[in-house]
Amino acid sequence: MTDRFPIPIDDPSDPRVEPYRDIRERDLVKRHGMFIAEGRTVLQVLVAQNRFPVRSALILENRLSGVWGLLQELPLEVPVYVATQQVMDAVAGFHIHRGILAIGAIPTTINPLQTVPAQWRTILVLAGISNHDNMGAIFRNAAAFGVDGVLLDGECCDPLYRKALRVSVGGVLKVPFHQFSKFTDIIGLLEGNRISIAALSPSGSEEIAHWTPEERQALVLGSEGHGLDQRWLEKLRTLRIAMDDGFDSVNVATAGALALYRIRSLRT
Amino acid sequence: MTDRFPIPIDDPSDPRVEPYRDIRERDLVKRHGMFIAEGRTVLQVLVAQNRFPVRSALILENRLSGVWGLLQELPLEVPVYVATQQVMDAVAGFHIHRGILAIGAIPTTINPLQTVPAQWRTILVLAGISNHDNMGAIFRNAAAFGVDGVLLDGECCDPLYRKALRVSVGGVLKVPFHQFSKFTDIIGLLEGNRISIAALSPSGSEEIAHWTPEERQALVLGSEGHGLDQRWLEKLRTLRIAMDDGFDSVNVATAGALALYRIRSLRT
Repeated sequence: MTDRFPIPIDDPSDPRVEPYRDIRERDLVKRHGMFIAEGRTVLQVLVAQNRFPVRSALILENRLSGVWGLLQELPLEVPVYVATQQVMDAVAGFHIHRGILAIGAIPTTINPLQTVPAQWRTILVLAGISNHDNMGAIFRNAAAFGVDGVLLDGECCDPLYRKALRVSVGGVLKVPFHQFSKFTDIIGLLEGNRISIAALSPSGSEEIAHWTPEERQALVLGSEGHGLDQRWLEKLRTLRIAMDDGFDSVNVATAGALALYRIRSLRT
Repeated sequence: MTDRFPIPIDDPSDPRVEPYRDIRERDLVKRHGMFIAEGRTVLQVLVAQNRFPVRSALILENRLSGVWGLLQELPLEVPVYVATQQVMDAVAGFHIHRGILAIGAIPTTINPLQTVPAQWRTILVLAGISNHDNMGAIFRNAAAFGVDGVLLDGECCDPLYRKALRVSVGGVLKVPFHQFSKFTDIIGLLEGNRISIAALSPSGSEEIAHWTPEERQALVLGSEGHGLDQRWLEKLRTLRIAMDDGFDSVNVATAGALALYRIRSLRT
């Protein structure tokens, strides 16, 4: 057989769609080396980037023709399941209005990063980003503004969580990332590679509009609530975004976008 | 009586807390000239700005001491109700984990804007922004970067909707806004006031990093999905944000933040 054909799933208890079962609840636990890609845009990036192997796809019957061309780029052995809305919702455990799901695999061969790749010029460092919307938005901006790699500390949430991935419009699948257990290890790695580090903070000492990034520049974003620890703010070069007095700082992903765009503008 | 005292609510069916009943469902319909402010930050801006009269507050018993000082700034005749979590949730119809709600009134005397106030220099124009998260984020950024006023067309969602207000961290209560039925009326008003207009679009002709705003500048953000109508993009000066090829544009609120920050940086 040389042609791909869709495999109908009529019974929600069909074991072939087990990885899609009750995904809302199971998002919150480790997914045994797998993640859920949801929606056309994320599927498109998943297929185009070819960084994460695709295990299968589960498509709503009336959405199939719209993604069939895209699915042809997957290896023939990757099964494409098709189901009615009723069966799909029963499998997933809630209403899947986008009608497009796929299972990606996280390669177990990802080793801790020992050295920063020589071609990385713009590096984003995330400390304690715990909100999936923010994580997704940060990766969306990282992909848009040419970040070469993202380094996350152990307090960060999982960028491959379904919602983060969806909000990133696939940016999580595009920009390489590595998670470390400790923030201090990330700083050590960057310093060892002679990469300049600057941290964004409402109390930062330099305004980003007057800041010139270095040839190799790491930008640190701290947690949504309390920001980066004071002891790190004292050690690192710090940047702030000028804004109106008496108003709460902008969202962490927005602050990051302003700094990343500044870096990009000065380099191109 | 000259002192304010909290009024305990023990019965969820108490008519005094009627405006707080089933707020999730009622968010979606017109609220008879009222809106819900949720959480400490929004309440703080509501009280500090003093632009919208406060009708009452409903506070979780164990949150009362934390906001009591703030509530002293309200006129004495504004009732402060206090309830247990159980009663509060039963009234609201879902779990109010922030424990702080207030009812604000929308003045009926707001007339359509006939002329743009002379002191307005930076004006944000929103066309078809239909997502409450985006609306909230746009107002948060508008407040942070000193926008003088926001003009919305009839396709935009309500900025005073509970979630938009919360995401804006009170920005909606800080930055004056006016909703028009037609986008063309907004453009007519701006042109009549000799205010320069520029629209952000992925297909814009000028890059914002090289753009210099005028003394009085209006910035137009189009809808999340399709952006501004092509006929308007052809008529107006258009700006784009440089980003990596092949990647989806950044979020509309983020794009707006980049342009507003550019305006602010060049003016201060």
